[in-house]
Amino acid sequence: MPDREPSAEPAVTPGMEREETPSLIAAGKVHGTPVYSRAGEALGTVEDLMLDKRSGRVAYAVMSFGGFLGIGERYHPLPWSVLDYDPARGGYVVDLDRDRLHGAPAYDAGSAPDWGGGDWGRQVDDYWGARSIWGAGLP
Amino acid sequence: MPDREPSAEPAVTPGMEREETPSLIAAGKVHGTPVYSRAGEALGTVEDLMLDKRSGRVAYAVMSFGGFLGIGERYHPLPWSVLDYDPARGGYVVDLDRDRLHGAPAYDAGSAPDWGGGDWGRQVDDYWGARSIWGAGLP
Repeated sequence: MPDREPSAEPAVTPGMEREETPSLIAAGKVHGTPVYSRAGEALGTVEDLMLDKRSGRVAYAVMSFGGFLGIGERYHPLPWSVLDYDPARGGYVVDLDRDRLHGAPAYDAGSAPDWGGGDWGRQVDDYWGARSIWGAGLP
Repeated sequence: MPDREPSAEPAVTPGMEREETPSLIAAGKVHGTPVYSRAGEALGTVEDLMLDKRSGRVAYAVMSFGGFLGIGERYHPLPWSVLDYDPARGGYVVDLDRDRLHGAPAYDAGSAPDWGGGDWGRQVDDYWGARSIWGAGLP
């Protein structure tokens, strides 16, 4: 959709002044983008993206939820497909409420998951009802 | 391919200790990754990634070539598909030599291209012989 996106913030990287267009966005600009629930609650911010090397697709957005639940900073990987960008809010919108968030796969700082075998990724995809990237034949 | 990737460097982000696995890599870790020619010349480093919002794919890696050609720092967007990761070198390998690099679409710091209309992106894709993301129907 030719949505009008918010204009680029001041560039942090020389030469990257046009970090966002209607169809492209710089990965470096996604960092720190807020995430909202459909109801408009600010849930956290995007910490980093996990890329699937084979397909070149963004597989997960890792969001930090900075202790607003009173349980310290936690990291929630969300399948990229569950995030919708909302130009009006200047952030991503996901279908989750706090209950769903509580039950979602997450980890604390200092205890990162083992993505290697695919089991953890499948658990994430299953939870969010996302089409899994961890098909047959992947390690 | 189940290539053995280099082990993760010290994490810069808490909770992101496992930034790379055989199949996934954190976008934040791609920043600064060296790019080599097939002959092994160090050509530059990845400055940022441009993501296609619609498909969720990495569209371009923007590489900075830090003045080693004597023309100051320049930014070359390369279609993601032309980069191969080489675990032995710990960097990406592209089919380019300096002549090809000289002629490639690029811009200087402070004069970022206009990705908006797709013309510039098509020019990049054409140059590198990459399948274009700027098909019919895109703005």
